[in-house]
Amino acid sequence: MHFTSEKRLEDGVLERGFTLGEIPGVLWTPESTEPVPLILMGHPGGLGRMHPRLVARALACAADGYATATIELPGAGDRPRFTVVDEARADLQRVLKAGEPVTDDIVDRLVLPLVETAVPEWRATLDALLALPEIGGPVGFSGGVIAIGTRLALVEPRVEAAVLFAGSYVPRSILEEARQVTIPLHVLLQWDDEGNDRQQALDLFDAFGSQEKTLNANMGGHTGVPSFAGEAAGRFLARHLK
Amino acid sequence: MHFTSEKRLEDGVLERGFTLGEIPGVLWTPESTEPVPLILMGHPGGLGRMHPRLVARALACAADGYATATIELPGAGDRPRFTVVDEARADLQRVLKAGEPVTDDIVDRLVLPLVETAVPEWRATLDALLALPEIGGPVGFSGGVIAIGTRLALVEPRVEAAVLFAGSYVPRSILEEARQVTIPLHVLLQWDDEGNDRQQALDLFDAFGSQEKTLNANMGGHTGVPSFAGEAAGRFLARHLK
Repeated sequence: MHFTSEKRLEDGVLERGFTLGEIPGVLWTPESTEPVPLILMGHPGGLGRMHPRLVARALACAADGYATATIELPGAGDRPRFTVVDEARADLQRVLKAGEPVTDDIVDRLVLPLVETAVPEWRATLDALLALPEIGGPVGFSGGVIAIGTRLALVEPRVEAAVLFAGSYVPRSILEEARQVTIPLHVLLQWDDEGNDRQQALDLFDAFGSQEKTLNANMGGHTGVPSFAGEAAGRFLARHLK
Repeated sequence: MHFTSEKRLEDGVLERGFTLGEIPGVLWTPESTEPVPLILMGHPGGLGRMHPRLVARALACAADGYATATIELPGAGDRPRFTVVDEARADLQRVLKAGEPVTDDIVDRLVLPLVETAVPEWRATLDALLALPEIGGPVGFSGGVIAIGTRLALVEPRVEAAVLFAGSYVPRSILEEARQVTIPLHVLLQWDDEGNDRQQALDLFDAFGSQEKTLNANMGGHTGVPSFAGEAAGRFLARHLK
């Protein structure tokens, strides 16, 4: 892990860009004399475009005493194109435009390569972050892509709780994996999310095997998560990561 | 409104039984030198049976500075039987036992007479409560029966926000009324509620016309609402009634 930039934000929060091999990422740490817990912050891809919203979430987490970190998704932002996913996305656009059904095949090709690539990258990032003296534990995950969060919740024992954002297609195989997830979950759903299949999100929430799982559904469109819903997600993390 | 009993609970909370005409009810007020806001506390009927849980909710509300009040449902507890509802309940038990579908006719006969009778009773109770010097405003509603809460949210302008508990059948006409409801809503749904039709609850949540509505779904069966979900409902009321 190489730090590539450093910037002091409000309240003493330190924002550092980094690369892990070819993967760009950002780490935000609050001022603290002790190692702090860590939240891996998921997003839909495009660190540059997402930066203002990520900073807002990171500052809120820092105020609660958490470090946050995120990495670019495979094929997004400045990373090399992910051809198989690009092709699936083109197919998706085509069928949506034609009013045809979105097939399992398209969803699988759109999402599974991302999951297969991103989850090991998140885990390697976690190794590197936990090696830093300023980062302790416990570790949570918060954000999208929900299929990535689901797989990470299943395979990465260091992730103790997850806030998942229901805002993307869910392959059937991920629905099956969800049944084996046991960590506490807080699922955010934007009820009238124009780009999201609500029934798929409800089916996924139903599938999770976790004894503690909360669905928190609100109005306001895909990017309109109300501030009180963000605060509720923060309280969920505080309950489980302290 | 006649007070029939008075008891001092923990933290100085005063519990008073009352009757409004033939209707028994309970009022809980926190210690305060100023008039306090009021929460009308819904429940499934049976004040005696429900008392421990109602007291717990009333004490939590009192700690937040609210008075709470509740009245017995028509046909429940010590009130005269409500024959039409009793007959519908017998029909419901029969079809459930036989594995037959629950018809709209049964749901209408089970729920609509309750709504028609209970809502004017709640409104008369509200008149009486707001005439007490210790009760000010604003006013919220919190609890079941969800069809009663929906009608009350629609017709009673003094109710400014409502926590609704999705745990009962919903007549189609109430679904239509829900589209006209505009006050902020926080809907609690127990995801694996054995006595509740989840799809009906989701359809009702979808129908509400309110610009701010939150669905908070959790595990734990009908009576197993987790404490953190109760606290989230409390924060919703605090946001809107202060």
